[in-house]
Amino acid sequence: MSDKKIAVGIVGATGYTGAELLRILAQHPAVEIACITARSEVGKPVSELYAHLRGVVDLPFVALDDESLLQCDVAFFATPHGVCMEQARRLIDAGIKVIDFSGDFRLKDKAAFAHWYGLDHCAEDLLAEAVYGLPELQRDKIRHARLVANPGCYPTAVQIGFKPLLENGLVELYPLVADVKSGVSGAGRGAKVANLFAEMGESFHAYAASGHRHQPEIEQELTKVAGQAVNITFVPHLVPMIRGIEATLYAVLKDSAVDLHEIYTRTYANEPFVDVLPLGEHPSTRSVRGSNMLRIGVHRSVDKRMAVISVVEDNLVKGAAGQAVQCMNLVCGLPETMGLHHIALMP
Amino acid sequence: MSDKKIAVGIVGATGYTGAELLRILAQHPAVEIACITARSEVGKPVSELYAHLRGVVDLPFVALDDESLLQCDVAFFATPHGVCMEQARRLIDAGIKVIDFSGDFRLKDKAAFAHWYGLDHCAEDLLAEAVYGLPELQRDKIRHARLVANPGCYPTAVQIGFKPLLENGLVELYPLVADVKSGVSGAGRGAKVANLFAEMGESFHAYAASGHRHQPEIEQELTKVAGQAVNITFVPHLVPMIRGIEATLYAVLKDSAVDLHEIYTRTYANEPFVDVLPLGEHPSTRSVRGSNMLRIGVHRSVDKRMAVISVVEDNLVKGAAGQAVQCMNLVCGLPETMGLHHIALMP
Amino acid sequence: MSDKKIAVGIVGATGYTGAELLRILAQHPAVEIACITARSEVGKPVSELYAHLRGVVDLPFVALDDESLLQCDVAFFATPHGVCMEQARRLIDAGIKVIDFSGDFRLKDKAAFAHWYGLDHCAEDLLAEAVYGLPELQRDKIRHARLVANPGCYPTAVQIGFKPLLENGLVELYPLVADVKSGVSGAGRGAKVANLFAEMGESFHAYAASGHRHQPEIEQELTKVAGQAVNITFVPHLVPMIRGIEATLYAVLKDSAVDLHEIYTRTYANEPFVDVLPLGEHPSTRSVRGSNMLRIGVHRSVDKRMAVISVVEDNLVKGAAGQAVQCMNLVCGLPETMGLHHIALMP
Amino acid sequence: MSDKKIAVGIVGATGYTGAELLRILAQHPAVEIACITARSEVGKPVSELYAHLRGVVDLPFVALDDESLLQCDVAFFATPHGVCMEQARRLIDAGIKVIDFSGDFRLKDKAAFAHWYGLDHCAEDLLAEAVYGLPELQRDKIRHARLVANPGCYPTAVQIGFKPLLENGLVELYPLVADVKSGVSGAGRGAKVANLFAEMGESFHAYAASGHRHQPEIEQELTKVAGQAVNITFVPHLVPMIRGIEATLYAVLKDSAVDLHEIYTRTYANEPFVDVLPLGEHPSTRSVRGSNMLRIGVHRSVDKRMAVISVVEDNLVKGAAGQAVQCMNLVCGLPETMGLHHIALMP
Repeated sequence: MSDKKIAVGIVGATGYTGAELLRILAQHPAVEIACITARSEVGKPVSELYAHLRGVVDLPFVALDDESLLQCDVAFFATPHGVCMEQARRLIDAGIKVIDFSGDFRLKDKAAFAHWYGLDHCAEDLLAEAVYGLPELQRDKIRHARLVANPGCYPTAVQIGFKPLLENGLVELYPLVADVKSGVSGAGRGAKVANLFAEMGESFHAYAASGHRHQPEIEQELTKVAGQAVNITFVPHLVPMIRGIEATLYAVLKDSAVDLHEIYTRTYANEPFVDVLPLGEHPSTRSVRGSNMLRIGVHRSVDKRMAVISVVEDNLVKGAAGQAVQCMNLVCGLPETMGLHHIALMP
Repeated sequence: MSDKKIAVGIVGATGYTGAELLRILAQHPAVEIACITARSEVGKPVSELYAHLRGVVDLPFVALDDESLLQCDVAFFATPHGVCMEQARRLIDAGIKVIDFSGDFRLKDKAAFAHWYGLDHCAEDLLAEAVYGLPELQRDKIRHARLVANPGCYPTAVQIGFKPLLENGLVELYPLVADVKSGVSGAGRGAKVANLFAEMGESFHAYAASGHRHQPEIEQELTKVAGQAVNITFVPHLVPMIRGIEATLYAVLKDSAVDLHEIYTRTYANEPFVDVLPLGEHPSTRSVRGSNMLRIGVHRSVDKRMAVISVVEDNLVKGAAGQAVQCMNLVCGLPETMGLHHIALMP
Repeated sequence: MSDKKIAVGIVGATGYTGAELLRILAQHPAVEIACITARSEVGKPVSELYAHLRGVVDLPFVALDDESLLQCDVAFFATPHGVCMEQARRLIDAGIKVIDFSGDFRLKDKAAFAHWYGLDHCAEDLLAEAVYGLPELQRDKIRHARLVANPGCYPTAVQIGFKPLLENGLVELYPLVADVKSGVSGAGRGAKVANLFAEMGESFHAYAASGHRHQPEIEQELTKVAGQAVNITFVPHLVPMIRGIEATLYAVLKDSAVDLHEIYTRTYANEPFVDVLPLGEHPSTRSVRGSNMLRIGVHRSVDKRMAVISVVEDNLVKGAAGQAVQCMNLVCGLPETMGLHHIALMP
Repeated sequence: MSDKKIAVGIVGATGYTGAELLRILAQHPAVEIACITARSEVGKPVSELYAHLRGVVDLPFVALDDESLLQCDVAFFATPHGVCMEQARRLIDAGIKVIDFSGDFRLKDKAAFAHWYGLDHCAEDLLAEAVYGLPELQRDKIRHARLVANPGCYPTAVQIGFKPLLENGLVELYPLVADVKSGVSGAGRGAKVANLFAEMGESFHAYAASGHRHQPEIEQELTKVAGQAVNITFVPHLVPMIRGIEATLYAVLKDSAVDLHEIYTRTYANEPFVDVLPLGEHPSTRSVRGSNMLRIGVHRSVDKRMAVISVVEDNLVKGAAGQAVQCMNLVCGLPETMGLHHIALMP
């Protein structure tokens, strides 16, 4: 790591993950935010859209084809699906590392991509090269990546939660149930009636119970962990809060005498952003709000036959922007935790 | 049913279920609220504690041993565990029907009661006689009961949700997973730090993952439905909203070709308070807030091998006070739906 | 009042005030909902849009020019500004009473209307005839109206709050400050980024501090009450909750020895929907949520020189749909409180 | 400023202001947290009470008379009223700078203190010496203080908001209205029914309309600013959100032609933590959540005769812990903004 700052470009910063990325990068000691693109707000200062950034990030939005993007060392894509796969080639050819928040490079199977995202993939060679950016599962590959597919918010929690069970062969492979709950910032900043305060407030519901696009991504990666094909029953829910994901994971133990808590504690002993709580405790999303930490509570059912794992993260940090910066640190040879020491906002 | 109104006494109306019972009974066409007891507020008008009842219920609280309680036709106990089992005998002997909101008469096994509630049972004969008050499972028994054990809020949703799967033998008996989420009114009106707005707001967490007292009650009743011993993996969570319960239920189907939606629709076709949504829809708790309705969404996992059932109810209505009034109507020979036509408050 | 039910048509029921009107009318003993119009959802059952009305209101939406509207006795317009003034004439000519939720007929000064609503008025004769529908200020006029302009949500609270001060000449006429706060359902059901849960949640802000269209309406009506020109400084704010308005009103007392509480209590002694709280108490919006009640707390500043009046109402009930039904009852010769006995939902 | 870190002691860190102080100080580059006292949790690690501090602050709570407190350079009192006035003398005599969050040293008039806090003052000499810690009003005095009385949360917003009007003599001195709204963390972490989620959620109300203890503090300090006696009509309200204060201030302008926005902009041009928004904008509390910034919107009433100033801050940061650290920086000769660069958490 030299003293020169890393020049970073952000493609599509008008949504919540983009705004969160700005919050984190603006305070990152080794980063200079060099350019921020947007489709609809070109010329307007970022701080005009986001009052909380007044005096901190006053750069104007530029167009996607602006020269300044090609001068960057790293480009983040906080764009809808379909944008990065069209843009990545020219950036990578220019020697820029690309970190994509969308689903464009997560699924290796292009038929699955087409099925779940409704798009044909237009960058198959890059798809083969892209590295799935979950450091707790494959840190070394990320270090050498030119193109990182930042994981979905739900998959981060579910994979880190299931990993110790699957890599140690502790549970039956069927059924594996992930009942996940997310704050509404996960639904994005689009103007939809369903996401109005008056619609979401004081209400809770499941959605996509018959199929959600984060499921194949989880199965793809956990299959590697387990060494055999993994099927997940995955049901997301919306919680009337802004930030936070909780995943409760259920699996039938092969041996009910195993010391689950010890195994989880040992597995994650050296992970800077994974915290296994003391035995008997349940993590709350508030304990990670605004931070890159992910916390795990390890339990068993009353009859001791099932593992019940509760995982929490901030969907915009460890589930999106924080994880992306963690990957950037790895890609750029910086200390993995640099710029990611924010303490959760409580209360 | 004669023209004379039913005189009702409410024991312990300072909590949320008691307040909700007052809201419902004050508008019930066949009921006269005759007395309301409290430990700490004797002499104070109810409306002084609850401003929303000003001009509607202005009776003063009386002591538990007040004469007026013995003049009632029906007595509701909205008290903590342990009160009703001490008082029920003298009321029943006086010819009063008793409907208990607490756990005192739900578990038939007194050892289980002692284990989960930390109390020895002091009214074993009544325990044998008490009828579990879930009309959708045993309406006729309730009609003839002198003592009704009103079900817990979670068990109502879980039992009604699992019933069609179990009584038709559609699923493997293990594992049966109930991942349930409740608004915070379910935690009561006690002054606890954990239930402060600043603690619960913008946060979500699991609790009691290793065991919750509503579990044995569910297993006891579903065992009857299934005709064989049922084990449930039951994990409750707290949602930052006031009212509402959602239960997502998971079970492995024996035959993935079964038409689940048709079976649910048929099972509940004549139930006035159970609404099976059209295929593909997910119920939200807002759609039942303040009403006695329970709504069900019927789904299967992506691989079609699991049933995924989402059930919603208002924990204070169908999960407590509304269900109790439904039982009262049955016990008193009134139309079952009388006084329970409230439409959910939306938005 | 005969036994025949009043046939009611609702024009524009896809928004929150329309939905609330459906909730109230569906339970009104003298009303039959005969037709419901919408622009975009024609043919779809109301209950498909609003799950909470399943089994209660299953009528399909019809177009605005549907014949059935002309068969009604009363038509409510829960439409954006500009619709009712175009439609009212043909309905009134057909003998139908019209009650309008929009601003079309509130301001008698058509220049003011054009200024605040950005539209030229196209029904000036009806504007002259229309009666402002605030029963607590002019009940008798409403009884004989063919066209009722239902007041805005804020103006209802502000006018009822200021009335005793102004009609008794107790305060200086300048300044009169109304600092008002509203839940977000007041902003409607339109798909706007500003009204997303993730935008409104955990946040509070003023808006329109330099001018809001509810102000001229308040000044127009309070000028009648005071008998001389009234100017209001009126600042609205958005509260992260769904329903409820609180207005805190400030005025300098001419005589600090006056017994304000006695005057308020006396003024509203016979009003069925106005509740003056005991001395020293502050009303909360929760105490009126879902009900047509408006509650008032009467205070003075520490130095006793200013009146400080806190008024609460449910913006969708007393501030919109409930008040409109109150007006309908008056217009139709029904008891004023009929169908409006809902008790507030607490907690 | 030497390289040696400043040793800080925190007296009473079990409440929300204490927890927030820990969050800020744990990331402050020139501070070492040396000891944390508590009455009831002695021996327990801070992170056991506050999961968000796991791995960050793992010190155990010690008793108030622990030796380690006397080894500190600075002691913060995040205690209820009455504690600091008893303890300050021994700490100051030991050369320790004391910064008090309570009301003990805010009011110079001990009769007023006794009236509003219900306690006799027991440290009158220190009361005379104590400096009111609002840097934007008296930065230089704070630099030389041994004992700082950190302002209340409401007074910070109200004073900074009124200052430009009063020091320039732009408004009539009567009436001055401050209608203020606070998130519920301002009510503290005590176990009170009134502060439960189920009580506060989806509700809004005024309180203490007839008198609040923050009023005399505001009047005392603004009297200095105005150069003559100032009376405030001050009414607080509770908002169903955790953090944030908004104050809307009203005053009658002497000359309605004055350029208010220019005056505010100029007054605060060099203040690092005061941000005057562009003309026409309204600040929201979300734009300062978790940060030490205070933002101001400058408006006039429709008739141009009144100034309407909207001020927002995070009650736990600029309204408490952040301001205290700002004072600590001044007292210790550090750059005033050190450790206070947190960007607001949005959304």
